[in-house]
Amino acid sequence: MFEVLNQLRNGVDSEQLYRTLDTIKTDPALGVFQFRARNRWFGGAHNRSTIEGFYGAGQEDSSRLRTFELDAGEPAVLLGADTGANPVEHLLHALAACLTTSLVYIASARGVMLTFVESTLEGDMDVRGSLGLSDEVRNGFEHIRVSFRVSGDAPAEQLREIVERAQARSAVFDMITNGVPVQVGFAAV
Amino acid sequence: MFEVLNQLRNGVDSEQLYRTLDTIKTDPALGVFQFRARNRWFGGAHNRSTIEGFYGAGQEDSSRLRTFELDAGEPAVLLGADTGANPVEHLLHALAACLTTSLVYIASARGVMLTFVESTLEGDMDVRGSLGLSDEVRNGFEHIRVSFRVSGDAPAEQLREIVERAQARSAVFDMITNGVPVQVGFAAV
Repeated sequence: MFEVLNQLRNGVDSEQLYRTLDTIKTDPALGVFQFRARNRWFGGAHNRSTIEGFYGAGQEDSSRLRTFELDAGEPAVLLGADTGANPVEHLLHALAACLTTSLVYIASARGVMLTFVESTLEGDMDVRGSLGLSDEVRNGFEHIRVSFRVSGDAPAEQLREIVERAQARSAVFDMITNGVPVQVGFAAV
Repeated sequence: MFEVLNQLRNGVDSEQLYRTLDTIKTDPALGVFQFRARNRWFGGAHNRSTIEGFYGAGQEDSSRLRTFELDAGEPAVLLGADTGANPVEHLLHALAACLTTSLVYIASARGVMLTFVESTLEGDMDVRGSLGLSDEVRNGFEHIRVSFRVSGDAPAEQLREIVERAQARSAVFDMITNGVPVQVGFAAV
């Protein structure tokens, strides 16, 4: 019973976690992943991404049993019909999700049992940038604030250190803070 | 009839679009927005963001009739149970959604009727970074490729120019290519 509890620490199979780390350490080619999305416009500010396949661990994935569909929109004040969270809100979600998953996996690897993880995020922007009304303000957020509230069976200092380690390893935190080259192609159809 | 069609060009109320641009040009303080998300952990790689309120156009928004909930997860090979698209896939969606909305609004402002907009996105990463197995690869995507397929009542060159203008004005494209300062706070609860 203890072993089972231990194996599913924080809902993460820690045996599988160690095995995965060892496997990729032994064969670094298994660490190469490609993630994908396909997006289709439905009128106005409404568009939808479909997410399914990816490549990783040496093969095209076939384990996913369902496709994820994500709708985007804009509120009325930004000329939309609220068909979904807007693109910058989706970016905040991506950041929150990645920091949280990193934090949970790191805690699991360290044997810390978490009981609660919540975060609130705020991003400030001057929409004159993206609306093309000013070249003096940037298009995106000027800054993003994230506040984590965490509890678990470790002292506050150790929980804080896990949150710091999550920042140091989160894929989305890296991309949003450091930037990524994006190449955009176009074809008229 | 022509006027109605014209006003709802591409599903965007172009009269409202011009009015919004004029209003913010006259009173730049109305361009100040704050977007937010709250994220809660549900075990393992499953967490959910709740998105509702925002500040913009001089007031706290009260127009949204519903809350958006976004679930994140990881596939089995990354120790999850596929409770949602993973965080980096959500980032690809945010990018696709923002470029597409920018493109549609720009086309509407220029009087171009679009009939089809689709994009595919790919992001390549070596997960040894985010798994803490290597300091020589970054945590996030090394690069992202976006491919747009667009049709409308304008020549290919004009459609291409609209896609380029969308890159120049998209909030998420700006953030992902240039980076944003992110401040992370922590409290033990």
